[in-house]
Amino acid sequence: MAQVEVFITLKSTVADPQGLVVKHALENLGYGEVDDVRVGKLITLRLKDDNKDALNKKIDQMCKKLLANPIIEDYKFQIQ
Amino acid sequence: MAQVEVFITLKSTVADPQGLVVKHALENLGYGEVDDVRVGKLITLRLKDDNKDALNKKIDQMCKKLLANPIIEDYKFQIQ
Repeated sequence: MAQVEVFITLKSTVADPQGLVVKHALENLGYGEVDDVRVGKLITLRLKDDNKDALNKKIDQMCKKLLANPIIEDYKFQIQ
Repeated sequence: MAQVEVFITLKSTVADPQGLVVKHALENLGYGEVDDVRVGKLITLRLKDDNKDALNKKIDQMCKKLLANPIIEDYKFQIQ
């Protein structure tokens, strides 16, 4: 069994309205020192496969095909 | 300026319908080795504050008050 954490973030050039809402909410709570907020996804996968090299390729494909939208999102992942 | 990554995941006892949909979609793409998928949030904050100890407390408060729902979610964060 392998556990993989996939981190998906909006590219820095893409507007993040959800992040903006969170920033304003934090400001309203008194956290005026918050300069920027970006909201992304953290996808945790558990796989039956254990071969790290094969997994690397496979997870990269999964990200490109389904998990991330490469046009507006960046992704990275970590196999544990 | 400090950058903080906040990782928010559903507690393991909480059902994750979104993760289930992603798991089925991956299976349909031929990735039958996927055993479990959980979808969480990755929130990236940029703050004007630089004091690590003060930040630790502040981010923990932000998580409890707004960013996470402690009843169904776990959170951890990393200050860079």
